[in-house]
Amino acid sequence: MKIGFDGMGGDHGPLETVKGAIDALSIVQSTIVIYGDEAKLNNELSKYKYDKNRIEIVHTTEVIENDDKPVKAIKTKGDSSMVVGLKALRKGEIDAFVSAGNTGALLAGGLLKVGRIKGISRPALCTIYPTMNGASVLVDAGANAECKSRNLIEFAYMGSMYAEKVIGIQNPKVALVNIGAEETKGTPLYIETHQLLKETDLNFVGNVEGRDVPSGNVDVIVADGFTGNIILKLTEGVALSIVGGLKVQIMKNTIGKLGGILLKKNLKDFRKMLDYTEYGGAPLLGLGGLVVKAHGSSNAKAFMNAIKYAQIGIDNNLVAAIKDKVKDFPKANIEESEDEE
Amino acid sequence: MKIGFDGMGGDHGPLETVKGAIDALSIVQSTIVIYGDEAKLNNELSKYKYDKNRIEIVHTTEVIENDDKPVKAIKTKGDSSMVVGLKALRKGEIDAFVSAGNTGALLAGGLLKVGRIKGISRPALCTIYPTMNGASVLVDAGANAECKSRNLIEFAYMGSMYAEKVIGIQNPKVALVNIGAEETKGTPLYIETHQLLKETDLNFVGNVEGRDVPSGNVDVIVADGFTGNIILKLTEGVALSIVGGLKVQIMKNTIGKLGGILLKKNLKDFRKMLDYTEYGGAPLLGLGGLVVKAHGSSNAKAFMNAIKYAQIGIDNNLVAAIKDKVKDFPKANIEESEDEE
Repeated sequence: MKIGFDGMGGDHGPLETVKGAIDALSIVQSTIVIYGDEAKLNNELSKYKYDKNRIEIVHTTEVIENDDKPVKAIKTKGDSSMVVGLKALRKGEIDAFVSAGNTGALLAGGLLKVGRIKGISRPALCTIYPTMNGASVLVDAGANAECKSRNLIEFAYMGSMYAEKVIGIQNPKVALVNIGAEETKGTPLYIETHQLLKETDLNFVGNVEGRDVPSGNVDVIVADGFTGNIILKLTEGVALSIVGGLKVQIMKNTIGKLGGILLKKNLKDFRKMLDYTEYGGAPLLGLGGLVVKAHGSSNAKAFMNAIKYAQIGIDNNLVAAIKDKVKDFPKANIEESEDEE
Repeated sequence: MKIGFDGMGGDHGPLETVKGAIDALSIVQSTIVIYGDEAKLNNELSKYKYDKNRIEIVHTTEVIENDDKPVKAIKTKGDSSMVVGLKALRKGEIDAFVSAGNTGALLAGGLLKVGRIKGISRPALCTIYPTMNGASVLVDAGANAECKSRNLIEFAYMGSMYAEKVIGIQNPKVALVNIGAEETKGTPLYIETHQLLKETDLNFVGNVEGRDVPSGNVDVIVADGFTGNIILKLTEGVALSIVGGLKVQIMKNTIGKLGGILLKKNLKDFRKMLDYTEYGGAPLLGLGGLVVKAHGSSNAKAFMNAIKYAQIGIDNNLVAAIKDKVKDFPKANIEESEDEE
């Protein structure tokens, strides 16, 4: 098995990507194929001792930047680490591709170079949402700002497959984000989606309000990409802001500082629960191959974990399982995709 | 001046409403007119010593319940504390009306019994969003699940007036919630609204992403009611979940407990910042009178603060200021309201 890895993606470039790949070698059994500037990658690799048979480099000359226009970048930067990696995934040369590059470009590249699963209208970003009570899955975390009900139904199915195959949750509880528990709440899109979800064979448990999203009481949280992105980022923002506020209180006076010292070890465990780098990657589900988006600001640990989750996805045949599941989608939902390339 | 108060609204009934009204007497100069069951209210009032000239009771025989259908409840329960109070507001017998009752009914009652300001298409729930860096204003916090751009523009103006008149922020910074900083981000609704906001005379500072909402860097956060409601409730949920997780860590072992004891006083200040009861009420802006929605689970302190903010709104002529400001709205925005009663 081979996991492809975009060595040039993310805010910190090869410094962190290479370290992440090296660290991942001890927790995954695949060979890691790094796409990027050979000289820069080798320069970083030379800092480590590792099994040379398990890291391959594919030299590429271009890089897609964060401010590049997605579709244009994919079409014009044919020798970029991202495009070359995605093409290799399509050809079956690698079994998954992990990148912390431009999200829009990765989505466009996934659609143009890897292609969608037949019967899925839009790929969705499926992320692990850490809660105090284990992990939930949030889908769509931002790939599709505007959605139709059929998209949300597909997200629910794909999120459910992810929870089952990658997190290992049997018969995952699927909930629809909404502004009230009653099925008549929300916009027409959400009211319609609630009704359609009730008719599926998913373990649909109803609406989940914002207040209950962090409880971890449900396994799969379904939202349009606009709402999902705000949920994901707001949760990070509130957590950072509270931890920051807590630090200010601890440092306020001597007694506080002393209390902080005593609590140090316990607070470390606590921070770990809030730490996105523990999960590190979100697959773009609905594509014909396993494409994993790592956070733009990923450090080596986040890359290591993104590679680890890619390995779990490979081992459990996530993409094949979704392909197979499409035939169970509600009949009304299987129509010609609206944005076929 | 008189502040009307729904004595029967909220999860705890007259026990907490009456205590809240009594406590408010010392911080507002208005007389408080309580609408509700006279016997029950008097029974609670008899527990306190207070200036009898400053509390009036208007006896009503019906109560709108949380599971009542809003419009039907307003039309059929003519002698409910909510309807009688709203009618008194329209007639000018009171200067504001505070209720913790059914939100949908309060909105419907506001529209049917008080009426909208001419030029405003939809009233919006305008809430104070506590941050580590002072308070922001969030509008709409849930009155309108589905919105058009003209609604969002109106929310921006009304939120800006609220920040100025009630929170006392000069030239408040107005931001649009979105999934990216660039003006091309988001759904067509948000892209259009961004362009329209740029053309207003508001101090529009651009988009604010979920991660930055809790920073307190902007004064007015504009969102459709679906997104706004999720932002408000998710923030509460994440804060509760983190504080709960922190408590678990503190109680985990003896050293943790000792640290917790030392931090007790500091953490009290910290919790105060997260405490919605410090603000307690959100006005339904855009109505012809000042209607303030208190949280359903309000305790006496939350009611006291809701009454306090109603007083600030009265003192600063909030409703008159909005009426006056409507003429500055962009011309394109002043058209026949789509849902005129």
